[in-house]
Formats: sequence, structure tokens, C-alpha cells
Amino acid sequence: MIDEIIEMIDIKKYTQLKEILSEMEPADIAALFDDLPQRYMPLLYRLLPKELASEVFVELDADTQEILIKGFSDSELKEVLDELYLDDAVDIIEEMPANVVKRIISHTDPELRNTINEVLNYPKDSAGSIMTIELVDLKESMTVHDAFTRIRRTGLDKETIYTCYVTDKNRILIGIVSAKDLLLAEEDCVIADIMEKNPIFVNTLDDKEDVVLALSKYDLLAMPVVDNEQRLVGIVTVDDAIDVLQEEATEDIEKMAAITPSEKPYLKTGIIDTCKQRIPWLLVLMLSSTFTGKIISHFEDALGKFVILTSFIPMIMGTGGNSGSQSSVTVIRGLSLDEIEFKDIFKIIWKEIRVSLICGIVLAGATFVKMMLIDNVSSIIAFIVSMTLLFTIVLAKLVGCSLPLLAKKVGFDPAVMASPFITTIVDALSLFIYFNIASMVLHI
Amino acid sequence: MIDEIIEMIDIKKYTQLKEILSEMEPADIAALFDDLPQRYMPLLYRLLPKELASEVFVELDADTQEILIKGFSDSELKEVLDELYLDDAVDIIEEMPANVVKRIISHTDPELRNTINEVLNYPKDSAGSIMTIELVDLKESMTVHDAFTRIRRTGLDKETIYTCYVTDKNRILIGIVSAKDLLLAEEDCVIADIMEKNPIFVNTLDDKEDVVLALSKYDLLAMPVVDNEQRLVGIVTVDDAIDVLQEEATEDIEKMAAITPSEKPYLKTGIIDTCKQRIPWLLVLMLSSTFTGKIISHFEDALGKFVILTSFIPMIMGTGGNSGSQSSVTVIRGLSLDEIEFKDIFKIIWKEIRVSLICGIVLAGATFVKMMLIDNVSSIIAFIVSMTLLFTIVLAKLVGCSLPLLAKKVGFDPAVMASPFITTIVDALSLFIYFNIASMVLHI
Repeated sequence: MIDEIIEMIDIKKYTQLKEILSEMEPADIAALFDDLPQRYMPLLYRLLPKELASEVFVELDADTQEILIKGFSDSELKEVLDELYLDDAVDIIEEMPANVVKRIISHTDPELRNTINEVLNYPKDSAGSIMTIELVDLKESMTVHDAFTRIRRTGLDKETIYTCYVTDKNRILIGIVSAKDLLLAEEDCVIADIMEKNPIFVNTLDDKEDVVLALSKYDLLAMPVVDNEQRLVGIVTVDDAIDVLQEEATEDIEKMAAITPSEKPYLKTGIIDTCKQRIPWLLVLMLSSTFTGKIISHFEDALGKFVILTSFIPMIMGTGGNSGSQSSVTVIRGLSLDEIEFKDIFKIIWKEIRVSLICGIVLAGATFVKMMLIDNVSSIIAFIVSMTLLFTIVLAKLVGCSLPLLAKKVGFDPAVMASPFITTIVDALSLFIYFNIASMVLHI
Repeated sequence: MIDEIIEMIDIKKYTQLKEILSEMEPADIAALFDDLPQRYMPLLYRLLPKELASEVFVELDADTQEILIKGFSDSELKEVLDELYLDDAVDIIEEMPANVVKRIISHTDPELRNTINEVLNYPKDSAGSIMTIELVDLKESMTVHDAFTRIRRTGLDKETIYTCYVTDKNRILIGIVSAKDLLLAEEDCVIADIMEKNPIFVNTLDDKEDVVLALSKYDLLAMPVVDNEQRLVGIVTVDDAIDVLQEEATEDIEKMAAITPSEKPYLKTGIIDTCKQRIPWLLVLMLSSTFTGKIISHFEDALGKFVILTSFIPMIMGTGGNSGSQSSVTVIRGLSLDEIEFKDIFKIIWKEIRVSLICGIVLAGATFVKMMLIDNVSSIIAFIVSMTLLFTIVLAKLVGCSLPLLAKKVGFDPAVMASPFITTIVDALSLFIYFNIASMVLHI
């Protein structure tokens, strides 16, 4: 596809190319730009019909947007900016270098400029920072007919017309009415009679993750955002909510794997940035595993006498680590999805005690049998290793389930507490148990 | 809240309770049932206004639904069933035991029964299995006025009226038109002139994950589903898509943590089921770490002579494991989000080689300095450990990034290949490198 397009540009088949592009979806056209050599970008962009062009612009990645903006004339820039919804404009501005931002801001009208600045000032990850202001607002005294007139007059520029928001004279949100309700009602019905009172809403300062969970819980197409005086200031639409969901899941997964989250996709992150995401965690975890080494050093003499004990260290540490992360990851995901709260801690610990005892007994039994039949070790060694496994699994699961809950309680990120950290703690615990049981049983 | 409700039931304040409930959101009422003792459930459910009742029913968990269905009279059951959308009915049926399913099926009319059976026959995780059939279909010869008449007449029972689907006389999907386009068009416009031709659609057999990614990519409120003859058979709405997204992310996270995924939330899964999710993986990984033990046994003599080497094993294995899972998890998530494809493998390997060399050199350098200054070991030991780290990190990252891609290529689940399996491989590799370098340098 991309080669064909380059060829068509080269041989100047612009009319034909224009036709092909106008049939395509914005997201697919944006994907073309990913593989397009930079010098073709402005030309291809200018071939897009005006409305499609701004839809494509929003879908492009930040680097491509920057290249295009730099090539835009002032009037082209203004044309694109005029077509953007507020939330998209803010997204773009946040990714651009200072000189480009300056140029963008200088080409927006003063009112929009103020709104952009307001949104930019909301805390990162807050509802305010991801909302848009292009919504349909109605008054409760309007009839259904009035509402449709208003939607027809202003609807084209609204991000959604499917949920309309009813506000009083102080812009306080007093109800919502869906386009479906409007369509199914009589023309002379009054909005006050068909609107849903007590609508669900969020505050500008609420965490965007909570906003999205609420939107999904109540199956909304858009979530109204109000300020501290309950005045309606914006909405978060479902397509943006999906993006937030995907990002948050990716962030959690990255944190669990000891990576500092990045907003860029992997293939678009530079080598140095990828190293910056990874090296600090590797260093911290490496240093923290020094403890584990210290425990081994402490029992050096015993290990020198019973070298066979050493060969079971990886298995014990590995099983402990896996048991712990099974529990921690389950709890962390439950917290992210709001299925688990801190008040459940005793229920969770009690469940994990029972689960870990069953897991521990099964694994210890299996190990004992395997060591006796396959490894041909003495029963005393098999006993030491099996007992260690049992205790390690129980402790690992207790640490794994409770640490994320405690982290959340004191305001840390539970996902950061996940696998790698818990593994380090469990590694140390398991060796400590191992050598102590060995010392007791073998009298060393 | 729940205590108040129980009290109100006990002192028979039904009218007041009814009023409170009718103001609440279905999802919030369903949450009440979670904490309600079983004997109160039927009574509370019967207090709900009819329409709200079926909205609440859909949100309840399967156990509560079963309890309620068992208590329903035949006419009550029919009332609930009549209000359900097809996809919700199918979801419920899939969770019920055979005798309850039989009773449900015997109370649905023959036409619906056939459709339910059809949907139940689609493969698990296919678009067909999650779609609903309650959609607004239009003909291209209709005017906008006709379309509104049709929406007003049938819209109440449709899952969404915001996207309408234009089909020809053979039910083949030929276009879509949004309610917004309809509202902004003149009453006498013909649908053929305002509909979007070449709409995006999926096939009934497509994986639901791909359906959801496409819906999110193109910012749709509903994705049309067609059969092999391109006939429109259903739609997947955005609220169901969000649920699929959440489930799929949870599944990936569980697999990466060596847990067999379950569809039930953690707190609602029984002890035995939780153990079944966890024990098989712990056993497999425990047995596979036997290799690592074998490598240690093989170098028992060397370890006996240089016991200090043992104390660095946890640090080397831990750092290797973490390095590997950083890469594997990044690639797995990229695959899930469709940001990475198999054809990118060489690009990815080349990137990981450079990243791993930088990570390796930094970590090896840090370890060397730390060992010389803090651990006070001889420079020869520090050299062995640092070199091992460098090679381990490079190998771990290569294994970590390529295994998930290869797994995907041959049709396995990349997430299952993640952290735990890769950690086991990397553990063995790192020890192998460690002892070989040690043997060479120390001539043992």
C-alpha cells in the first residue's frame, strides 16, 4: 500500500490518490504516515479533504504532528486548530516542544486559549486533564422540539450529541437526557419531565482511572465533569475512556515487570529512553538482592559441608517468587478494577492462608517424592527442602497479598510493589527459612 | 447502607424502600445484592420497578441470578427474559447449571430460542458469541423522515439507536448512518445519499479481542458483525467492548504471573478453584527449575572450593530474570495492543541488543564497583560476576523479546511464555554462563 502511494505521488497522480484517501478511515490514513518517508508527509496531508484532514491529524503520532505543524503556513495551522476538539488540542500541545506550543497558542482565539490553559493546569491524570468542553447543554424549561433545534444548530461541533446535559442558570448540572429519550418523546414534552435527575458525575480533580471505571460501571457514553461548585465544565467521552483503560492496564503491566511506564509505544521509544525506563529498576533490585547474598554468606560453612543444599536454592527461590507474584498480581489487578478494597484485607489474608496451605502441601509432597525417586537424595535432605517449600509458599503468598494492600493504604502505587520487589523479599525469606531448617535438622 | 435496607425490610417499610431504590443506578443496586443475606434477595428484587428490575438483573453476579431464578414464578421468569437483550440473555445462560438453562429456554418464544442457540454455537471468544441482534436497520431508499419513524417505532427495544445499519434486500450490509447524521440532515434526504459506504465490519468468527481493538481504533459506538455471506447478523456495542478489554487485560496479567485465568473476580472464586488456577503452574515451573539445580550440582566441586561464588547466585539469577521479563512483558503487551507484529522481529531484536548492551554495561560496572568497595572481594571474583551479568542481561533480553513473538507465530499464547517460563530459561542460562566464566578464569 505505502509503496503504491509513494509511486502515485512521484508520478503526480494526485486526483486518483485523493479519491483513494477520501474513501479511507482516518485511523488507517494515520497508519500510512508511520511508514511514509518524512519528505512525502506534507504533500500527502495536503491531498486530504479538509474535514478528513483534521480527523487524521488527531490520530497521528506526536513526531509526525510536529513535522506537519512545522511545515504548515499560518492559515493552514489555524484551519487545523479550528477543527480540533479541546481535549485533542490539549493532547497535542502537551506533546509539542515549547516553540511549537508558542506558535499554536498564538493562532488560537483568546477564549479558546484561556480554556486550553485551564485544562493544562489540571493535575496530570485528573478528570479535568482529559475532558472536553464541546457538549450539548439544555435548560429544563425547553421542550423536546427546542432541544432538537439546539442540537441541529450546534450539534456539528459537539463531541457527542447522544447525551445532553441539563444545567440551571448557574451552570449547575441538574439532569441528563439522552438523544434516545428525546427521539422517543413527544415534541412538546418539557425537558424537566423526561430528564434523569441525580445524574452520575465526577469532579475535575478525580483520578482519570476512577472516572473510567465509573463510566464503564454505569455503561455511559460520556461522563459529565463538574467543578467544586457542581458547575458542569466538561465531559469525558467513551472513546477517550477506552484509551485511558488501555494505557492504565499497560502501565500496571509495566510496573509489575519493573519498568518505568512510558506513554509511547515500544517501537517508537528511543534506545536511550528504553534504557532509562529499565536501568533504575534493575539497579535497585540488584542492590536489594545483596541481602539474599548476605544470607548465603552467613551460612557459608554449612553450605561448604553440604554442597548438595546449594543445588536446591534456585528451585526454592523460584517457587517462592512465583507463589508470591501469583497472589500479589491478583490483588493488584483487583485493586485496579475496584473489585478489592483495603477493608477486605482480613478476608483476603484468610483466603490466602488456606490457598497457600493447600498449594504448599501439594508442592512439598511432590518435591519430596521427586527428590527421593529421581534425585536420589537422602530422606533427610528431601525433608528439609520440602518443609522449606511449605513455609516459603505460605509466607510468599501472605507477603504477596498484603504488601499491595498496605502500599495502597499508605498512598503508594500497589503495582510497583508487585513481582520484582516481592520476589526480592521472598528470596531472602526463603533462604532464611531454608538454612534455619537445615541447621536445626542437620545440627550444623 | 446495607444494614439500613435490611432493617427497612424487617420493619416492612416497603414503600419508603421502593422510593429509595427507584432513585438508584442499576449497578449500585446490584452491588447491594453482593452483601445481602440470601433470604432477603427475592424480596428486595420484587420491590424494584419492572424496567429497573431487569436492568439490575443483568448486573448481578451469576450466583445471585441463579438464586433469584430459582425463586421466580414462571410468569416472573418470562417477564425478566422478555426485557433482556440477546447478548445479556446468552451471558446469563452460559453461567447457569443445566436445569436452570432448561427452565429458561422453555420460557422463551421459539424464534428467540433459535437465535440464542445460534449465538451459543459460535466459538468461545468469537465476535458472534458476544454480539447482540437488537439493532436498527434501514433501507437505502428510505428518507430521513422514514428513518426517524422507524427509530421511534422500534427504538425502545434496540441496544443502540445511535448507529443505524443500512442493508439491501438480502440483508447484506451496505452502509451505516449515525443518529447525528440523521439529526443534522433534512427530513426529505434519502439515506443512500447520507450513509457512509464501505463501513468497517467484522466477521462472526473473528476473535473478540480483534473486534474490540478495531472498535477502539476507529472510535465506533458499535461494531457491525456479518456472516460469511456479508449479511448483517448483529452488533457489538461499546459497553460490552469495554468489558472485553478489561477481561483480556486481566487474563494477560494472570498468565504473565503463572495463573490460569478465571472469569470470576478473586473474592468470588472458591479456595479450591483458586488452587486449581495456581498449583499446575507452580508444579511445572518447579520441575523445570530442576535444570538449574542440575547445573549447580555439575559445578559442585568448584563451588566447594570457592564458596563465595554461591553468594552471588541470587543476584545474578534475579537480575537475569528481571531483565528478561522487562523485554518479554513489553513485547507481549505490544502484541496484545496490535502495536507489534511478527514481521517486526528483526527490528525488535536489533533494538533489544543495543538496549541490553547499555543495561549490561551499566549494571556490570555498578556491580564491579560495589563488589570492590562494599563486599571487599578480590578483583578476580568481581570480574567474574560482572562479566556474567553483562552476558546474562544480553541473553535474557534476547530470549525475553523473541520467545513471545515465536510463540505467537506458531499459534501459542505469548502471555503464557512470559515472566515465569522465561525466568526459568534465563536462570539456567545465567548459571551456565557464571560457572563457565568462573571455570575459565579460576582454572577449575
